[in-house]
Amino acid sequence: MALLVQKFGGTSVGSISKIQHVADKVISAREQGHDVVVVVSAMSGETNRLIDLAKEISTAPPPRELDVLVSTGEQVTIALLSMALTEKGHSARSYTGTQIGMLTDNVHGKARIRSINSERILSDIKRGCVVVVAGFQGVTGEGHITTLGRGGSDTSAVAVAAAINADECQIYTDVKGVYTTDPRIESKARLLKNITFEEMLEMASLGSKVLQIRAVEFAGKHNVPLRVLSTFEEGEGTLINYDEEGGMEQALISGIAFNRDEAQITITGVPDKPGIAFQILGPIAEANIEVDMIVQNVAGDETTDFTFTVHRNDYDCSLKILKKNAVELQAEDVSGDDTIVKVSMVGVGMRSHAGIASKMFEVLSKESINIRMISTSEIKISVIIDEKYLELAVRALHSAFNLEEPSPQNEENSLSET
Amino acid sequence: MALLVQKFGGTSVGSISKIQHVADKVISAREQGHDVVVVVSAMSGETNRLIDLAKEISTAPPPRELDVLVSTGEQVTIALLSMALTEKGHSARSYTGTQIGMLTDNVHGKARIRSINSERILSDIKRGCVVVVAGFQGVTGEGHITTLGRGGSDTSAVAVAAAINADECQIYTDVKGVYTTDPRIESKARLLKNITFEEMLEMASLGSKVLQIRAVEFAGKHNVPLRVLSTFEEGEGTLINYDEEGGMEQALISGIAFNRDEAQITITGVPDKPGIAFQILGPIAEANIEVDMIVQNVAGDETTDFTFTVHRNDYDCSLKILKKNAVELQAEDVSGDDTIVKVSMVGVGMRSHAGIASKMFEVLSKESINIRMISTSEIKISVIIDEKYLELAVRALHSAFNLEEPSPQNEENSLSET
Repeated sequence: MALLVQKFGGTSVGSISKIQHVADKVISAREQGHDVVVVVSAMSGETNRLIDLAKEISTAPPPRELDVLVSTGEQVTIALLSMALTEKGHSARSYTGTQIGMLTDNVHGKARIRSINSERILSDIKRGCVVVVAGFQGVTGEGHITTLGRGGSDTSAVAVAAAINADECQIYTDVKGVYTTDPRIESKARLLKNITFEEMLEMASLGSKVLQIRAVEFAGKHNVPLRVLSTFEEGEGTLINYDEEGGMEQALISGIAFNRDEAQITITGVPDKPGIAFQILGPIAEANIEVDMIVQNVAGDETTDFTFTVHRNDYDCSLKILKKNAVELQAEDVSGDDTIVKVSMVGVGMRSHAGIASKMFEVLSKESINIRMISTSEIKISVIIDEKYLELAVRALHSAFNLEEPSPQNEENSLSET
Repeated sequence: MALLVQKFGGTSVGSISKIQHVADKVISAREQGHDVVVVVSAMSGETNRLIDLAKEISTAPPPRELDVLVSTGEQVTIALLSMALTEKGHSARSYTGTQIGMLTDNVHGKARIRSINSERILSDIKRGCVVVVAGFQGVTGEGHITTLGRGGSDTSAVAVAAAINADECQIYTDVKGVYTTDPRIESKARLLKNITFEEMLEMASLGSKVLQIRAVEFAGKHNVPLRVLSTFEEGEGTLINYDEEGGMEQALISGIAFNRDEAQITITGVPDKPGIAFQILGPIAEANIEVDMIVQNVAGDETTDFTFTVHRNDYDCSLKILKKNAVELQAEDVSGDDTIVKVSMVGVGMRSHAGIASKMFEVLSKESINIRMISTSEIKISVIIDEKYLELAVRALHSAFNLEEPSPQNEENSLSET
């Protein structure tokens, strides 16, 4: 018997029949002997409907009032889900962010959680009640309603799980879990039974949009085991936790992520002197453009080449800024390319295993795929390649690193899960 | 400069453009130098939409969850109205029942207000803010959301007005105020400038459905001057307050109310002995049927006749119950009629003026209208007549008592209002 937090997003509660299906899933967990706290989002479409009402009135509605407005979305869902559970014979009680004491700072629209009053949840749980909590919303110390921003419901669920010391926080989505890579590109992509928080962070930020980065960070910080599973299909999904048997054999690579939204800008032959990076990127940052990869390389004796990537939407603007500054920077040339992609291999096993990078380069070379940029971290290697090679690169790497085969680590943990 | 509470119902806030119109009305009061607290209902149709969602899940949803659900209706309106006011350059702040400390008992669906925390409202008012409060909803001492039941928004407005000691509580509706009688029946019906709480209670309960009885009682109890006016047409409406110049000349009659929903049941020749009224009405009450007028008359030496009225929907059921009990009651006969109406004259002036009743009977007699039942109170005379005479009776009485002419009282008070 475990204490579980189950989070269902907007598409999972998008209609009355879907809400009834969610109630069945919760009841199934209850019948297995588990205590359950459910965190839900607004019914899909509802938040946008409310925002559209606001937009009819104002192009810039006061953020405080926007939070009062959109927070009604989850309030509707918690009431309906509690009704569905009661109708099916299980006692249930709903709570808004205010009622549960989901205390946040006062940054309306993207508030950050400070604390949760777990007393009420735990006392309802004790008397056999399913507790249904509105995700995405909180309250300031002065009683003003706040929202956590897009994807905030995942964070709410993790926060509740941390506050009540839940055994697991289960995030129900429309996918079965986290895969070694995108199954639409590599049909042999395998559902991971386990992945670490760090790997998940790298996977998420690289475009595997299963979970909000913020919720993963929060879960990692408070050591809340997270599980991603499907609302609509059976299965155990993917468990995200710390690698607690750090000394044991580990999977070298957990997965291959990629991002099609990047564009590359290169500035060559700039003087190699202190402050040049800031001179190049300062104006970009001022234009509120986010920079992803940055690579600097020695070119000649006293000059250097500098390359960075931005979102494709910001490509034209970035190029314009740099071309304008080229003379001042004493650059030889400014060029760019928006037909590139980033492919990344992620795995905590890299830490202790040499040769991953060289094997990656070898695989790509065998396929005659030219690498334009390389960037590495402790548990990740990213390369920028021509976008036409994306699928080929992903499949070749997936196969070369045997990702379709379960790794020893995943096998072991699958035993300890059941 | 006065402190005003303005209440706008569902039809007044039924669309974005109507909400913007309400904002304009509030701003107009602000520009006249008044401080304003606005109390609003859910947008028309919204409460029913939410209840329909609940009904898809359960025929008897838990009342606590139903309150969580429907209370989102007003929450949407307060946010949108605050946005509209801000957009038009006036600072505004919304509050839910919970946020304003609208403390109620824990009878979900028809909670009664216990107290309001006026501190927050008054401090916002002090800094020049329009305060926008969600009507119809409250919160228990334990933080559970409650609703006050149908028409509860009027009561919310009165409660807020009492708590902050407002100069006037203005109820905006789709009529211009309270008339001497229904203008659809007597085109000469006159808009009253003034009416007392007691008169309004008699008018409301008799079918002039302008204001909820409960709100009028509440206003009377806390001596909150109430004003009924139209959202869509200009005008000063009708002020409802205590007759504070009790010694002065008063209008004899304020208005003529009527009720088409009544049916009459008569039981004749029952033994005139203690307890007989209870024996007759006990089984009716047990069937949850509400009885309106009750008249008992001496018939023979040792028997009595007993007549009462019920809602027409309850007519068949009441008749059946009485016929079943007729033998036990030793009644000669049980009969009924559901083609009758009640016509009532209401006026505090009756207290000090004799002869109103006899004049009323004379008027009806001249029109050959037969009176079937009579019932009187301090400020009201009601008669039951054949339904086909309703319009004739109302017009004859309206004319005979000169209700189309402003009374001295109304003239005087109209001066003191401006």
